[in-house]
Formats: sequence, C-alpha cells, structure tokens
Amino acid sequence: MTEKSEALVLLLEKRRFEHVRAMVAEMNAVDIAELLEDLDDGQLLLAYRLLPKEMAAEIFSYMAGDTQEKLLGVLTNQELAAVMDGLYLDDAADLLEEMPANVVKRLLQMTSPEDRRRLNQLLKYPDGSAGGVLTTEFVDLKAAMTVAEAFQYIRECGPDKETIYTCYVIDRNRRLEGVITVKELLLASGEQLVGDLMEEHVISAVTTDDQETVAQLFAKYDLMALPVVDSENRLVGIITVDDVVDILQQEATEDMEKMAAITPTEKPYWRVGVWETFKTRFPWLLLLMVSATFTGMIITSFEEALSASVALTAFIPMLMDTGGNTGSQASVTVVRGLALGDIRVRDILRVMFKELRVGVLCGVCLSAAMFAKILLIDRLLLGGPVTVMEAVVVCVTLLATIVCAKLVGCSLPLIAKKIGFDPAVMAGPFITTAVDAISLLVYFRMATVLLHLT
Amino acid sequence: MTEKSEALVLLLEKRRFEHVRAMVAEMNAVDIAELLEDLDDGQLLLAYRLLPKEMAAEIFSYMAGDTQEKLLGVLTNQELAAVMDGLYLDDAADLLEEMPANVVKRLLQMTSPEDRRRLNQLLKYPDGSAGGVLTTEFVDLKAAMTVAEAFQYIRECGPDKETIYTCYVIDRNRRLEGVITVKELLLASGEQLVGDLMEEHVISAVTTDDQETVAQLFAKYDLMALPVVDSENRLVGIITVDDVVDILQQEATEDMEKMAAITPTEKPYWRVGVWETFKTRFPWLLLLMVSATFTGMIITSFEEALSASVALTAFIPMLMDTGGNTGSQASVTVVRGLALGDIRVRDILRVMFKELRVGVLCGVCLSAAMFAKILLIDRLLLGGPVTVMEAVVVCVTLLATIVCAKLVGCSLPLIAKKIGFDPAVMAGPFITTAVDAISLLVYFRMATVLLHLT
Repeated sequence: MTEKSEALVLLLEKRRFEHVRAMVAEMNAVDIAELLEDLDDGQLLLAYRLLPKEMAAEIFSYMAGDTQEKLLGVLTNQELAAVMDGLYLDDAADLLEEMPANVVKRLLQMTSPEDRRRLNQLLKYPDGSAGGVLTTEFVDLKAAMTVAEAFQYIRECGPDKETIYTCYVIDRNRRLEGVITVKELLLASGEQLVGDLMEEHVISAVTTDDQETVAQLFAKYDLMALPVVDSENRLVGIITVDDVVDILQQEATEDMEKMAAITPTEKPYWRVGVWETFKTRFPWLLLLMVSATFTGMIITSFEEALSASVALTAFIPMLMDTGGNTGSQASVTVVRGLALGDIRVRDILRVMFKELRVGVLCGVCLSAAMFAKILLIDRLLLGGPVTVMEAVVVCVTLLATIVCAKLVGCSLPLIAKKIGFDPAVMAGPFITTAVDAISLLVYFRMATVLLHLT
Repeated sequence: MTEKSEALVLLLEKRRFEHVRAMVAEMNAVDIAELLEDLDDGQLLLAYRLLPKEMAAEIFSYMAGDTQEKLLGVLTNQELAAVMDGLYLDDAADLLEEMPANVVKRLLQMTSPEDRRRLNQLLKYPDGSAGGVLTTEFVDLKAAMTVAEAFQYIRECGPDKETIYTCYVIDRNRRLEGVITVKELLLASGEQLVGDLMEEHVISAVTTDDQETVAQLFAKYDLMALPVVDSENRLVGIITVDDVVDILQQEATEDMEKMAAITPTEKPYWRVGVWETFKTRFPWLLLLMVSATFTGMIITSFEEALSASVALTAFIPMLMDTGGNTGSQASVTVVRGLALGDIRVRDILRVMFKELRVGVLCGVCLSAAMFAKILLIDRLLLGGPVTVMEAVVVCVTLLATIVCAKLVGCSLPLIAKKIGFDPAVMAGPFITTAVDAISLLVYFRMATVLLHLT
C-alpha cells in the first residue's frame, strides 16, 4: 500500500468524507483508480460513491478487471446504468467481454436499447481485429456543411465523442468520403464548405484487419485516428491513437512471451499469482523437455563413438549453445520484422538468401576462432588430449550448425505465418531444439567419418 | 521496385512532368517519400523539384537517412533553406544528428539565427531522454486570455505547431501553470477565461527523464501530448503521441534484439546489409561461444565420471535446455515488466520470492514427469541401461537447475539495472550460459556423491 492509500483508508474509517472528496479532487482519474484498488469491498463502494459524478465512469474504466467486478457486484441498478451510460462504447464492450455472464446480463439490462444494439454489434468483431478495438463515438460531418455549421455540430455532439479533432465526412449511405481535422476547420473561414476542404484520400482499415496491421498504419502515417469501414466502405467506427499505444505494448509483450515459451496473459506482473504464472510456463517447459530428450537419444545412439573419444563430449555444450544463439538472432529479427511490417511472408527466399550469407560469414569467422583456440590454448598451452582431426570435426560441425541455424531460424517463423501459426511461438525454443538435434547429428556423422569411429 | 515506382521512373525518363505532378497529387506524403527511395540521384532531384512546394519538407522528413543525404548533396542553398524552414524543429534536430559534419554545416548556414539557437538547444539533450524527443513548437496560452482570444492566437500561430489540440498555459517566467484542450475551449463560451477553465494538475516530464518513462506516462494516462519542463518547472517543449508510437516500437525492438544477443540498429531489416548484420551479431556469438567453452571445461573435468556412466551424458542436453528455457521465462518476464513500469528495481526480493515459488512448482512437476519417463519408458519399455539411482541424480539436478534458473533469470536483469547496465542485455544468452554451468556442476556433484564415482 502506498502512503496515499493508507491515508484514504484512514479517512474512510473515520468517515471524513469531505477530506476524501478534497483529496480526490486534486487527482487524475487514472491515479484515483489505482488508489481504489487497495480498498476492501465496503470501503471501495463507499469511496466510489464519494467520487464526483462526472468522473465516476472514467475512473471506473481505468480500474483492473477484478476491482470492476467487485464493484459491479455491490452497485445499485441505477448506479450500474450510470456507469454504462458514462463509459465510451468501446470500453463498455471490453468490460462486457471480461465480466462473468451474470454480471453481463445485469449490465445489459441497465443499458439503453440503442446502446445495447451498438454494443452487440461491437461484441461480434473478433478479438484482435480492427473491429474489436474501434469505437462508434466519432464526429461525422456532411460535405455540404459550412465550416461554421461543422463547428456548431461539433459543439453539440462533441462531449460524447472519443475524439473531435479528426472528423469524418460521410454521404447519405454512411460511405466514407473524406477526412478533415479541427485544425483545418479552425484555420478556414466560417462560410467555406467542408467538402471543399476535406482530404479525399483517406487512409482507412477494414473491420476484419488485424490490430497489428492497424498499429503499423498509425506508426507509418503518424495518425491520430483511423476510420474503420466495412466491406462496402461504410464507416463503422474509428480507432484512436491511445488504443494503439496499448495495442503496441500488448503485441510486443505477447511476442516476447511467446518467444520465451510463455503463454501470454494481458495482466501486469503483480496481478498474476504464483499458480497462474505456473500454468503459463509449465506446459511449455514440459513440451520442450520432452523434445530435448530426443537430442539425448541422438547422444545415446552414438555412445560408442563418445566413449572412444571423450574429448568430443566437452564440445557439445558449445556447439548447442552457439547453434541456439545463432538461430534466435535470425528468428527474433524476422519475428520483429514481421510485426513492424518490414518483412512479408512472400519475402522468404530473399530473407533466406540474406541470412545464408550472414550465416556463412559468422560460421567461417567463429570456426576459425574456435580452431585457433583449440590448437593454441587447448593443445599447446594446456596440453589437452584434443587431436587436430578432432578440432577439424568440431569446427566443420560449428560452421554447418551456424549456417543451418540461421536458415532454420529465419524460415520457421515465415513458414509458420504462411500456414496460419504464430511466428513468435515458432521463433522461440522450438528453434533451439531443432538446431540442437541438427548440430548433434552433423557432429557425430563428422566424427564417425573423419575419425573413423563406429 | 513496385509498379508505381516503375511508372514514376518511366514518366521521369520521358519527361512527362505533368503526369508526375498528377500522380503525386493523389498520394500521401509518407507514400511519396517511399516512392522516391527507389530513384537514382538525377531522377531523385528531378522528382523532388516537381513536388508541391508546401509538401516538399514534409515528404523530405519521411525519407530514409541515406536518401536524405543523397538529396541534400544536390540541392541548391535556397532549396536547403526551404527544407530547414519547412521541417518541424524536432525533425530538423534529428536530421542534423544523422547527417555527416559537412552537410550539417551547410544546413546550419541556411537556417535562421533564431532557429539555429533553438536547434542547438535541442541537440544538447542526450539521445533517449525526454529532451531528445521534444519539440518546441507548441501553443502557449496565458491564464488571463479569454477563450475568444485563445482561438485568435491559435489561428495565428497554429499552422507552424506540431499540435494545437493541447495548449499549455504559462506565466511570464514561462513556468507551466495549466493545460487546456481545444475540445474544452470549443465547448466553452467566448468570454470565459482560460485560467478558469484550465486543468492545473498537469502531468509533465523533466528534460532528463528517460524516453521509456515518457512512453509509460502516455500509456498510463492515455495522453495525446506531454509537456516537458526543466529543473525550474519552466516549459521547454512538448512530446506528441506520434513520437511515442515510434519510441514504443523502437524500445521493444531494441529489447528483443538485446535479449537475442544482437547489437540494436534503428534501421528496418532491408536497410541493413549483410556485412552490417554480421557486425551486429558476430561479437556476441564469439563472446558467448568463448563463455560456453567454460561449460565444456566442466565436462572435461568430470571426464572419468562420464566414461564410467555413459548414460549420464545423454541427459546433458535436456538439463541444459530446460535450465535455459526456465531462466529465459523469468528474465523475459522481468525485462518486460521493467519496460512497462510494472516492476521496479526495489521490488527485487518480492520478485525473487514469487519466482522461487513458481520455480519450485515447475521443478517438482517436471522432475516427477522426468522420473516417471525414465523409469517407465527408458527402462521398462526400451530396456535402457539407466539405473534408478541415475534417474534420481538426473531428477534432483533438474529440480535444482530449474529453481536456480528462475532465481538467476529474475534477479540478473534487476541487478543489471541497479548498477546501471542494460537489463535486456543481461536477460539474454548470458543467463543461458550461467545456468548451463550451474546445472552441470550440480549434475556432476550429484553423480559423484550418489553414484560413488570419482
């Protein structure tokens, strides 16, 4: 608990409600929401009722899911109606998606029929699509309006809109005709027509687009808002840049977690308990452990070769680690390139050709370094038992491993994406396991041939 | 080359300049910049001169660094002056930072003394700080202005500002007094005073703040713009959300690259050549290969134990891989938590306690699974040579490795951050190497003690 939340608890206990109001009046909605997280059920309800009416819904929208659920359970129907009315529609849709069925039912009963219809529409779009993050609360202008009329309209409907700064011009069939900003309207004279001022080449997304594609558009074109249209170019809603900031953070976190063999959760670190954390990590570890035992089986099958030349065993960790590192360099680069829109699936051959050349460069240099190290340090300096032929086996294997690792690392995520799997899941430890197996097979084959082992 | 750029080349060759102008008039500045990338020097200059004057600087700001340099080399002084005049100051500062010294000198000569002074100021802030990304082109209002006066002022100075939608109220010493949005101004009546309407609790950053901290503020408070003040609370500039979108992508890419043992570059995949890619990857692979040879030395020093029980060798890859995977799960979670502001350095003990419990849970379950697998599949089904005691050694080592890996994985990034190193660099393969060594040491110690090997 922070100092501030301790103070709040104390004020609530002593029923110093005026002090609570004064404390909250000084604060930002996000910080108030954070403050309320620490309260127990009774205090939470009490504190919520002390909030300024016009801020309550906004504060509610910033609370964590479990706090929201706790609060919804104790609010009166009238208070529920006020929450639903005060939330932006996209936030209300997110809330309905998170809450259990009985709460959703109560919430929908407290919503106006018109909002309920629009909410149901929003809830139909799949999670992670442009439709899933859009809001229907935007300013729509008509081309025939004058600038003065446009301002009049913005003043009337503005308070309920997520953004008023980018306005969309639609025809009578709600088809998107153009876009105009408040800045442009402000700099124009009152009698000019919106249709003459608007930009007709509008960058837009379709409801079915991936939210990552949407984020790429924002980044590329420095957008503040993006209109989303349906398959017939009718304007359905807009996506605002603050949601894109969240999407970017969420997508990057997910990719990192997947690459590290973790099932992604959307919750911050301290909101995930030990048991829940275990469940996001254990299945992957088990899967990878089982697949790593196949690597062990390769070793077992070359047991005799290994006992004939124990020096070879000492190089196994180095070969496996270097292969793994080389592979993840390539795969992380490709996964990130896909997420940023720099690389497309159809570039696969170009990517492989580039990585092949990088792999050969890295492989030749590393093998040469390793060869020198074995001969100069292991043999000459330390007088180890490694023979020159063994050094050749190690270094040729190293070169082959590095080139294979680069090729596997760069192509697996692209192939995964092509066949509809998640590239980041492929880019992670699966590549390590695959490269381990390849490097050991090459190693023992080389050893058998060059050292004449059986 | 895309179809469009081929068409452009053709039009330029045939000197169909009217067609070029018409083609460009239909396009967005970002797309035009992309189109010009493919042209050779002479065509680039020709095409640039055909661009509408009012768009030229904006298009220039979206070009890649090498194209900008190419173009600056062939522009006349007058054209250079137009570019510098047309660029937003923060973009101009970024340009100066990227260009070679002789180009910078020419550019600064073509800049007005006032802009030069402000540019020099901007260039003093370190890269990656709030000062390094701010722009000085914002709307500053006075508390005593009426709403009508404020709109008059915005109309006059608005065209040159990066954003007009969030306005900052400053006193005569340029100290930040409040913030007000154009939405609030539009919804107020003309004679109201800015000072009565403004929000006095302004969320702001200091010039020396890390850009990652700035991005966290935007994400937390859903900001569109953030004022940046100096140590005496004087308003220096603002950061706009479009720059934050870039910062978020850049920081996430950097963290991923560092964790994958790659020296980060800011360039997209196809702008980094094979040789340059090699240079970002090779040093890390070399370093990690050398550190992996220490793991090999551990194996060598237990050579006799291994030759006495060859079955043990087969489990080495499984132990190393599982340790590595477990460690990166913890480290990636912590690195991301740090980047998102969920975890702070002083939480280290709480983090370690949580990871310890997760580690014990994962360790016990995985060891049990492995024990069952060895006894049922390896021994009973396949009739392998593994003894029960060897299975015990493997599984106890597995448990110890997993718990150690979780603790090392979660604490190393935090310790790194504490002593001023980069957490993401620590979170990567260094943890794998450390965990490899730990797991092998435990393994051979266990084997020596429990199997009575020497």
